Order: sequence, then C-alpha cells, then structure tokens
Amino acid sequence: MTKLKRLFTIILRLLALGATTSAIIIMVTSHDSTEVLNLKFTVKYSNSPTFKYFVIVEAIASGYTLMVLFISPKSVFSPLVVVLDIVTTLLLTSGISAALAIAEVGKKGNSHAGWFPICDQVPKFCDRVSVSLILGFAAPIVYFVLNLYSLHPVFNPLFAVKP
Amino acid sequence: MTKLKRLFTIILRLLALGATTSAIIIMVTSHDSTEVLNLKFTVKYSNSPTFKYFVIVEAIASGYTLMVLFISPKSVFSPLVVVLDIVTTLLLTSGISAALAIAEVGKKGNSHAGWFPICDQVPKFCDRVSVSLILGFAAPIVYFVLNLYSLHPVFNPLFAVKP
Repeated sequence: MTKLKRLFTIILRLLALGATTSAIIIMVTSHDSTEVLNLKFTVKYSNSPTFKYFVIVEAIASGYTLMVLFISPKSVFSPLVVVLDIVTTLLLTSGISAALAIAEVGKKGNSHAGWFPICDQVPKFCDRVSVSLILGFAAPIVYFVLNLYSLHPVFNPLFAVKP
Repeated sequence: MTKLKRLFTIILRLLALGATTSAIIIMVTSHDSTEVLNLKFTVKYSNSPTFKYFVIVEAIASGYTLMVLFISPKSVFSPLVVVLDIVTTLLLTSGISAALAIAEVGKKGNSHAGWFPICDQVPKFCDRVSVSLILGFAAPIVYFVLNLYSLHPVFNPLFAVKP
C-alpha cells in the first residue's frame, strides 16, 4: 500500500515536471515577426516581463520537482516537502495568473487603455504561447492534487491531528 | 494554550479580512478622468477584466474569512477549513498576480506591443489602484502564515503524522 502511494506521488511529480519543462521550452522558442511600414518587428517572450516571470517560475518548479523525486519519504526533509509543495503550488499559480492576464490583453486588447490586440499580427507567436499557458495551467492543478494527497491525514477525520 | 492559539488564528483572519475588504473598497472607488482632443474619458477598475477578477477573488476571500470566524475549531468542518484555507491562499495569489501584471503594463507600458503607459494621464486612478494592490498583496501572505500555522503538526517532526 505504501509502495502504491509512493508510486502515485512519483507519477504526479513526473506529470508536473513534464508540464513545466514543456511550458518553458514552448514559451522560450516562441517567436514570430511582422512588418509595419516596411520595418520588420520580431516578437518573442522576453519582450514581456510577465512572460519572463512565468518562465522563471516554471524553471524553479521544474528544478524543485526534479530534486524532490530523489528524496525518500522516510527522509528528515519529508515534512519540509509538504510545505515546499504548497509554496511551489503558490508560485505556479502566481506565474500562470500573471501570464494569462497579459495574454488576455494580447488577444483582445483594451480599448479603454488604448492597447490594441497583437495576435492578428503575430498569430504563430500567440498560438505557441497559448499551448505553453495550457501546460502552465495544468502544473499547479497537478501540484494541488499532490498537496491534497500529502495533507489527507489532516482533513481525513480518521487520521485527524488533535490540536 | 489552546485559547491563545485560537486568538492568534482569529487575529490573523481579522487581518486578512481587513486587507481584502479595504482592497475591494479602494479598487471599486478608484476613478479618474482625462481629456484627449476635447473628449473626456473616465477610467475605472471595471474597464479591465483582470481588475474585475481581482475584486471578485477578494470578495470570495472576504466572505469565506468572515464565515470561518464563526466556525468552532472543534466543529466537524474544522479539517475542511485547513484545505479551504489553502484554496483561499491560491485564489488570493492568483488575483494579485494577475492584477500586478496589468498594473505593470499600466505603469510602464510595453513598447514592443505598442501599449503605452496610462498612469501619466490618470495618476489619481493609478495611486488608488496601487494602494489596493498593496493590500491585496498582504492578504495571501497573512493566509500563508495561517496555512503554516494549521499545518505545523504535519511538518513539526514531534507531531509528525505517520503515513
């Protein structure tokens, strides 16, 4: 039973690792160019500080997830992992929320602020960013399941920790 | 000792409630107007879907925090509160991250995308939004401390839950 639990946790972590590393690769390799008045403009993720933040957060989460795969559940660090898992979920949530907010402006613009949508000009860039954001959205969900799983002794009344 | 713990939790919840409700009030009452070519434009939070999302998230967190204040720690719902506290922390983190991403564009613009900063035109609006965002930033921090506090039996080895 304990082996099965360990296997389930490892599968979840590998899923999260797959999502975050794919999100980074797709985001970093996204670029497209457009011509305005015979001048060529190239669009890439690093043009937006928010997309840079997204990539940094996904990289931290990837590194952490990879590291934790090698920590035994019997290790002294095991209780710390529960807390670091929550911190990672928060970081991933922050990164995807910020990136989605900017992507929404890129897609629809904001007429009140005079910000025009850019996706009509650079559709290839927008498509790739969308895929990266879908993967970046999956990662905190997987991590949230991991949180629930490691915390089930707390909220399962049968295992309830008495204060 | 248990009474002291309960008092500490209540103080944290009241702090979070103060931060979220103030953030809502300040954000909702933020507006400013500017004239462009003799046409008057009014700027308000609801012009941005992201700021609307921020207000909705703060409202959900306020309602939840108020409700939980009346739940006894001995109630059967008490273990559920631990999980809902984490969900609330995630929601608050998502709301503030998205709002900060948009505020950054409002403040500095993005020359690559052709989005001009708007804070020079509507400084009063930007100042109030900044105060709202500072409060909105404090709320998930308070909630994270609450999470750590309710989870300390899990990561404190003396109280460690054996799997």
